[in-house]
Amino acid sequence: VAVRAVVLREGRLVVDEVPDPVPAPGQVLARVLACGICGSDLHARDHLDAMIDLQRRTRPGGPGLDATRDLVMGHEFCAELVDGSGGTLRSGTRVCSMPISVATGSIQALGYSNDLPGAYGELVVLDEALCLPVPGDLPTELAALTEPLAVGRHAVEKARLTRDDVALVLGCGPIGLAVILALRRQGIGPIVAADYSAARRALAERLGADVVVDPAATSPYERWEDLAWPPEADRTNPLVRLLGPQPRPGVVFECVGVPGVLAAITRGAMRDTRVVVVGVCMETDHLEPMLAIGKELSLQFVLGYTPDEFADTLRALADGELDAAPLITGQVDLDGTPAAFAALADPEAHAKILVRP
Amino acid sequence: VAVRAVVLREGRLVVDEVPDPVPAPGQVLARVLACGICGSDLHARDHLDAMIDLQRRTRPGGPGLDATRDLVMGHEFCAELVDGSGGTLRSGTRVCSMPISVATGSIQALGYSNDLPGAYGELVVLDEALCLPVPGDLPTELAALTEPLAVGRHAVEKARLTRDDVALVLGCGPIGLAVILALRRQGIGPIVAADYSAARRALAERLGADVVVDPAATSPYERWEDLAWPPEADRTNPLVRLLGPQPRPGVVFECVGVPGVLAAITRGAMRDTRVVVVGVCMETDHLEPMLAIGKELSLQFVLGYTPDEFADTLRALADGELDAAPLITGQVDLDGTPAAFAALADPEAHAKILVRP
Repeated sequence: VAVRAVVLREGRLVVDEVPDPVPAPGQVLARVLACGICGSDLHARDHLDAMIDLQRRTRPGGPGLDATRDLVMGHEFCAELVDGSGGTLRSGTRVCSMPISVATGSIQALGYSNDLPGAYGELVVLDEALCLPVPGDLPTELAALTEPLAVGRHAVEKARLTRDDVALVLGCGPIGLAVILALRRQGIGPIVAADYSAARRALAERLGADVVVDPAATSPYERWEDLAWPPEADRTNPLVRLLGPQPRPGVVFECVGVPGVLAAITRGAMRDTRVVVVGVCMETDHLEPMLAIGKELSLQFVLGYTPDEFADTLRALADGELDAAPLITGQVDLDGTPAAFAALADPEAHAKILVRP
Repeated sequence: VAVRAVVLREGRLVVDEVPDPVPAPGQVLARVLACGICGSDLHARDHLDAMIDLQRRTRPGGPGLDATRDLVMGHEFCAELVDGSGGTLRSGTRVCSMPISVATGSIQALGYSNDLPGAYGELVVLDEALCLPVPGDLPTELAALTEPLAVGRHAVEKARLTRDDVALVLGCGPIGLAVILALRRQGIGPIVAADYSAARRALAERLGADVVVDPAATSPYERWEDLAWPPEADRTNPLVRLLGPQPRPGVVFECVGVPGVLAAITRGAMRDTRVVVVGVCMETDHLEPMLAIGKELSLQFVLGYTPDEFADTLRALADGELDAAPLITGQVDLDGTPAAFAALADPEAHAKILVRP
């Protein structure tokens, strides 16, 4: 038996038949209903070798990807059990799951493993223990956003927020937008969001940013600092800055992930700013430690989410606490997926595209 | 009237007569009893232009140093009031003070200002509001350590320590040693300390490190990680690492301050490590964000201390909570100061040298 999937093969995405995935003990078979296209997948298509090299260095001893073998990506999914295991996991149940498997005795990243195909295909196998039923009336498209929204939730969790924080979100791609949703859910504000794309700024505003900034026209740091300082403070006077009323605490979410952004934040940030680095910069970057020292900045690098954060995000979607629908800007079938990857290069056109196999 | 001082003039230290410092309203005149030589002063002697450039960029609008004018450095001091202001600040009272002045309406860094001479001279003027009397029987030499020990105290404060932390101190110069003293005072342990110098390692052990490591022979990260993991954990098995008992939380204090150390920490640190950057790296440094992301590291850059931390450090010295005497490896007069700067280049010979004008 064979099923259709979008396969990454020698640097190109092709739609092809692949072997039917077979669940091991502790796993269940599921039909993919929707799967979001993630920026990491775009990166993997173009730079798989660099990604494999980093994977080897960050997780030595892990299974590791083989660039010469087929890879089915896709890790932001909602699926329907073909073959349930009883209890709440009956056949036909819609589920979300963290894209990982441990049931076969090693750690496999679903969507980044040659042995555990991801959700850009008709069928997946999932660890039974990780399957979370999707609450009854939550649309499948929204359930498929659980994974990227959990990333934003986790970043906000790691920011050690206080009620007084003034937040700056740099980059309004899906991750920056997920951070804005998570901040808004926690009642943090004002939120300043910056992106060069007008469409992305409009989305940021719709999802909860109080102020949006085009960095080509205005310094995001100045807008943010204006909101943090008491209006009466004379910030031009160093003595007032030292002894006068202090600004509200500042937190910056780096959701861009290209070299140079950390250095720019170091130059632009207020004293004592907590910087949460969510954007994944794959290249070596530079930093002027002396500037960071002078301001006593902190940089918190973050990745992924905890099982609790993932489950809580699905629940929050179901309870209407996260109004994430505007994130979805397109839906395609498997045959339309390679073109969707290309379309995502234009931030004016798209934020999140879902694949519906 | 003129007094003698060690002057930095055109990149060289010379002992010369300088104008008698005159207190402004709110300031008091004091005779310097002892002043420690700080690594920053060594750096300033050789790289004053680079330091001025950074000062301009980190504190725009500040007074700024002028490399063409004389500079009297020295900011780790204990002094005796020549001319008290009454109350507890009578003539003859020994005092410590944060090396800063705001009494003249601008912020002056004592020891890094052309207008406010530092304590490598016979006399200084101090802000009355910042003078802390030295408790009766605390030796002057130890009181003069208040400033560098407050730096260690502050670094430990910013580390968000938990009782479970396993600490790694990289670099056992005066700042690394101050961090060890502050950790020990808070009951944190085990403490692993690393330095290439045998003399510095011996000092680290004497001041409270539980394990000392020569990085030329042994990886400090491995020794530290061994202490953090439960002995029974099979750390070679990725699945055990994910699902098994987790290591105690790790904190690293970077007290070296040369390019490449942050990158090495990023490679060597355990997951979730908090890195406190106390070492002052004056040059642009590089970083692989992807490795830091994979481990969810945090980097907290720190500088100086708060007024409370400074006062608390003086009190702790007086109460015998900080056994700092071994830090002092030499004492010189003003004429011996230029040679003491040279001697500090050898970590086997010295940690902290005090100038006794």
